[in-house]
Amino acid sequence: MIIVMERNASPELVDAVTVRLEQLGYKAHLSVGVERTIIGVIGEKRPEDMEQLAAMAGVESIVPILRPFKLASREFHPEPTKVQVGNITIGGDEVVVMAGPCAVESEEQILTIARAIKAAGAQILRGGAFKPRTSPYSFQGLEEEGLKLLALAREETGLPIVTEVVNPRDIDLVEKYADMLQVGARNMQNFTLLREIGQSKKPVLLKRGLAATVEEWLMAAEYIISGGNSSVVLCERGIRTYETGTRNTLDLSAVPAVKHYSHLPIIADPSHGTGRWRYVKPMAKAAIAAGADGLMIEVHCRPEAALSDGAQSLTPDNFLQLMVEIKAVAEAVGRKSTAPVVV
Amino acid sequence: MIIVMERNASPELVDAVTVRLEQLGYKAHLSVGVERTIIGVIGEKRPEDMEQLAAMAGVESIVPILRPFKLASREFHPEPTKVQVGNITIGGDEVVVMAGPCAVESEEQILTIARAIKAAGAQILRGGAFKPRTSPYSFQGLEEEGLKLLALAREETGLPIVTEVVNPRDIDLVEKYADMLQVGARNMQNFTLLREIGQSKKPVLLKRGLAATVEEWLMAAEYIISGGNSSVVLCERGIRTYETGTRNTLDLSAVPAVKHYSHLPIIADPSHGTGRWRYVKPMAKAAIAAGADGLMIEVHCRPEAALSDGAQSLTPDNFLQLMVEIKAVAEAVGRKSTAPVVV
Amino acid sequence: MIIVMERNASPELVDAVTVRLEQLGYKAHLSVGVERTIIGVIGEKRPEDMEQLAAMAGVESIVPILRPFKLASREFHPEPTKVQVGNITIGGDEVVVMAGPCAVESEEQILTIARAIKAAGAQILRGGAFKPRTSPYSFQGLEEEGLKLLALAREETGLPIVTEVVNPRDIDLVEKYADMLQVGARNMQNFTLLREIGQSKKPVLLKRGLAATVEEWLMAAEYIISGGNSSVVLCERGIRTYETGTRNTLDLSAVPAVKHYSHLPIIADPSHGTGRWRYVKPMAKAAIAAGADGLMIEVHCRPEAALSDGAQSLTPDNFLQLMVEIKAVAEAVGRKSTAPVVV
Amino acid sequence: MIIVMERNASPELVDAVTVRLEQLGYKAHLSVGVERTIIGVIGEKRPEDMEQLAAMAGVESIVPILRPFKLASREFHPEPTKVQVGNITIGGDEVVVMAGPCAVESEEQILTIARAIKAAGAQILRGGAFKPRTSPYSFQGLEEEGLKLLALAREETGLPIVTEVVNPRDIDLVEKYADMLQVGARNMQNFTLLREIGQSKKPVLLKRGLAATVEEWLMAAEYIISGGNSSVVLCERGIRTYETGTRNTLDLSAVPAVKHYSHLPIIADPSHGTGRWRYVKPMAKAAIAAGADGLMIEVHCRPEAALSDGAQSLTPDNFLQLMVEIKAVAEAVGRKSTAPVVV
Repeated sequence: MIIVMERNASPELVDAVTVRLEQLGYKAHLSVGVERTIIGVIGEKRPEDMEQLAAMAGVESIVPILRPFKLASREFHPEPTKVQVGNITIGGDEVVVMAGPCAVESEEQILTIARAIKAAGAQILRGGAFKPRTSPYSFQGLEEEGLKLLALAREETGLPIVTEVVNPRDIDLVEKYADMLQVGARNMQNFTLLREIGQSKKPVLLKRGLAATVEEWLMAAEYIISGGNSSVVLCERGIRTYETGTRNTLDLSAVPAVKHYSHLPIIADPSHGTGRWRYVKPMAKAAIAAGADGLMIEVHCRPEAALSDGAQSLTPDNFLQLMVEIKAVAEAVGRKSTAPVVV
Repeated sequence: MIIVMERNASPELVDAVTVRLEQLGYKAHLSVGVERTIIGVIGEKRPEDMEQLAAMAGVESIVPILRPFKLASREFHPEPTKVQVGNITIGGDEVVVMAGPCAVESEEQILTIARAIKAAGAQILRGGAFKPRTSPYSFQGLEEEGLKLLALAREETGLPIVTEVVNPRDIDLVEKYADMLQVGARNMQNFTLLREIGQSKKPVLLKRGLAATVEEWLMAAEYIISGGNSSVVLCERGIRTYETGTRNTLDLSAVPAVKHYSHLPIIADPSHGTGRWRYVKPMAKAAIAAGADGLMIEVHCRPEAALSDGAQSLTPDNFLQLMVEIKAVAEAVGRKSTAPVVV
Repeated sequence: MIIVMERNASPELVDAVTVRLEQLGYKAHLSVGVERTIIGVIGEKRPEDMEQLAAMAGVESIVPILRPFKLASREFHPEPTKVQVGNITIGGDEVVVMAGPCAVESEEQILTIARAIKAAGAQILRGGAFKPRTSPYSFQGLEEEGLKLLALAREETGLPIVTEVVNPRDIDLVEKYADMLQVGARNMQNFTLLREIGQSKKPVLLKRGLAATVEEWLMAAEYIISGGNSSVVLCERGIRTYETGTRNTLDLSAVPAVKHYSHLPIIADPSHGTGRWRYVKPMAKAAIAAGADGLMIEVHCRPEAALSDGAQSLTPDNFLQLMVEIKAVAEAVGRKSTAPVVV
Repeated sequence: MIIVMERNASPELVDAVTVRLEQLGYKAHLSVGVERTIIGVIGEKRPEDMEQLAAMAGVESIVPILRPFKLASREFHPEPTKVQVGNITIGGDEVVVMAGPCAVESEEQILTIARAIKAAGAQILRGGAFKPRTSPYSFQGLEEEGLKLLALAREETGLPIVTEVVNPRDIDLVEKYADMLQVGARNMQNFTLLREIGQSKKPVLLKRGLAATVEEWLMAAEYIISGGNSSVVLCERGIRTYETGTRNTLDLSAVPAVKHYSHLPIIADPSHGTGRWRYVKPMAKAAIAAGADGLMIEVHCRPEAALSDGAQSLTPDNFLQLMVEIKAVAEAVGRKSTAPVVV
């Protein structure tokens, strides 16, 4: 880190900072400029030290230099990580599409959708059994019953399943059924949940928080990896901005940013990212063109009767069309796709 | 809610929407304009219905009319709520100041600070025993040991204590020691936690999420109240914006907005709200002038050695000065303050 | 528009609003609900009326229903508009790439770059002669000398030129040289400039403001079109968000949104949109996949010696590579590209 | 500035950067850490150099250390600046209130309002003659006729007048009538306008841009001061955030931030800052408590018939009440107010 002293900071104040640095085990490196003194600090280790030093008399500001994440960084692990979910590999040549309803509603619903997305070439089935809802009066999910229905759909279609876990107490239960655990956007900084999921053997899909920077997101991944679970896939799902024309603003530049700083695979969720089914297909294609390793897409047989997020769900027909168009884009950027060749 | 149909929506599509509305138990009210048809819907009840209707063919958009919160609304409960924390009342004439360190670090630290803030007129002691930290490598709090030290400080000073709970599994433990449970900004939409805290008998301090609207915040309060616990105090602690000169942007207009829409008391936290101790005093005065029922202020005897958030902590001397200046502003807006009369 | 009355609004207050509506020439349409009265207003014409009505006693809020833009709307003009710039058509089958340096610096610089981008298949040359710079101490552009150099580069390469106009007084001058006038992000709501450019015969490239919604952006286009100039091309160049890892957040969902609401062509500028040359290529491909009609790319022969925006400029080699990769994506989404077939 | 090299940057790349720095006239200061090399640069002068250096091979990022503004900085000018507008001083002990309608509409309107605000203790009359409006179909102001009416109101009441100038061509005209020139939020980075206003002898009210950081705002002031006009008053009027419950988010922490970094006076505009008349009074009090040197308040005799911004205008009665309450807060923070003693 760099410590910038105030313009009028006396030599005594500068000394006090360098003494404190040595107490904390750092080496200080002074640059006395015309306008002010700047102290380079060798050995950036503990975040709380930055806070302490920032509170010392004569200190104008602290500038961090190194990224705070380590295990999630590309410098630590130069090769891209591939994450295995059942027999599916995320982060390899093939673009992986996870699809399904926002919430599992009934056996008929989940089986019909699972068959439809399988026929269209999707590789993983998604569906919520525990739903974090803004309103306490909204449908909160079928809970274990929903997990059982997902398992039934897997049995019939062979698709591995990914589903959200919202409560640390439910991890064991969800692990019994799911092939991949999803951490939702609202829980990206639920550190209790992250830490406990770090002890799971199941791969994790970590959604970006509504107002999280890429750096904070990678720090959330660091929580999971440092707990012992390095099978983390990131999912960009839109951030909150002033724009109200879309539900969120899908930040696709997070795809090259994550590829630059980290070795973890990243997929995109244009359904939550835009909140409007009309924009899902163009943004899905954009995500693949930007280098995403896959997609998460909401599909519902009757969006107008869905118990959650109908406005952003595709019908099976629209989803098949999306898969076909995705295939063309994937191949244009040197990736493969499992979409059917002919519509 | 209002349903806006697309310009070219056929009468058949309009009919389909009105039929669906009736199935869902609503009354439809058609306005056929020159440019498009608009359907007024009488009886706004279930959030998921809006999603479903938005997914119907021919529907351009859905415009909600009524606020989604009920128990937290001023319409439901016109009189302002007063929340009792030990022998302290929040939401009455007196401005209530909660102060203390970000994290409890040691017996000496918490006792020294508790005595200092008591002498300066603070009414409630704050201090973190479980700390949600962005980095897994940061100090995470003393946990139960921290709670015991807080209880010790209460015993000595008589100040009730407020402390954060981050894990649903810890609620029982924290309740044993704390007079008020704090839900932190990162957990404002941790619905599992909210629901379980709704069953507690202890009053709750609910911080606003980093990117939460006032409406979402009141919905989070609704989770707690609908669970049975109506002793909720809101705390504005800054929202995330593009401005990087401050840690967050303290949104003081949330104070009159909450007063307009809700009966719940609201306080402000200018320490997290600005992240810079230099701005804490002016923003504390601003919060009281805007009508806040109190303040939460970080105080540390040696900010430059604090294990968390040193840069935004006040020294006891600065805190005393703040209390004296707050008193003048409180009286100017017709409130009372317990700050000492003379410095 | 819809007028939502307060819960306790008396019949007299409701009457006052309906009387006022009739005075203003509207028809009122009452819905008396259980909780409150809602007034549908037929004939949405003047924005200031909404403000006035919102100020009436008993009014809780005003909800606009129709989009405020007309000439820029797809409803008004269902067919996509094609804009002609010299012999180049924007908005047709072919993806159009505008490339060049941020600022024109010298004859050698602009000629070298113009030849390089032409060889790589770019169709329009960009370059700034008048530069709006955050600091008064930064290089502000070569002004008319820069325009002459652009014209020289056009003469040699045949590429039409687009350049920014920042001062209404300079429109005549810039028109003499340029084939297309650019309105920069900081001037998107410089209504004086928009109105005067509305009287120009030259096509206009209208960049999105840093914090403009898609709706406000289309209103800015409306200023130009209502002045008589309907040759407007929109350019998404990133919006300001809390994320600091990129210079701006390129909002590619604006592409399908503009296509949905408007008939105007839209291109994307991933150079300003990300501010980092490493992310330009993936985001350029993403923009084309999302349906953009073209791209604006900063190219500099020696980015490390550029007088402006070096960090986001591509070298000619990187630009050629981009053009080749763009071609593949363009074809995958059914568009054409003029990039050379072989690298 | 600090140059952070990439982890794997070779000694040759580091050498190239230091050679380039010397060519540009800087001194380089190497810190070779375990993880990477950092180059301290002595003599931070030209913003474009940062861009160039950021584009060099092996450079990870550039970290600016010094603030880019000079003439606007408190370091350059430690004493607070007082700005004279007619016989009124802004930045002294007295809190200065500018009030009046958003737009001048008629002689009767402006005279009635001017008399009312004078009686309530306001010191400066505001009113728009040239209105920058989002829609080309909205009322755009009475132009010179409006300026004449403002002058008439000044003649009758003795109140100096402040009014917006939106077109560089109108500066001479507006200067003939106005005592203070206002630069609106949408023109904060209209550098042409700023530069020309820098040559005016009239004091300037510079509103903060919708998405401007405090640093960019002070750079805009730097444009005006470096042009020769140092009578600049800043006006915080709310920034754009994700929160839709208010028109903008009034960022009152900008008040202490500006006081810390600059010598310029700063006032607040809670009318635009909140967009809702109900929140104007509490936020006006908050602004004064935070240390603002004054206020700008919209007042209209009949808000429900205003041609612009009715929803955020106070009636004369509400304004008088505001002045009385402001007086109490001003005195509580050691300032004076000209509000009448008794209501």
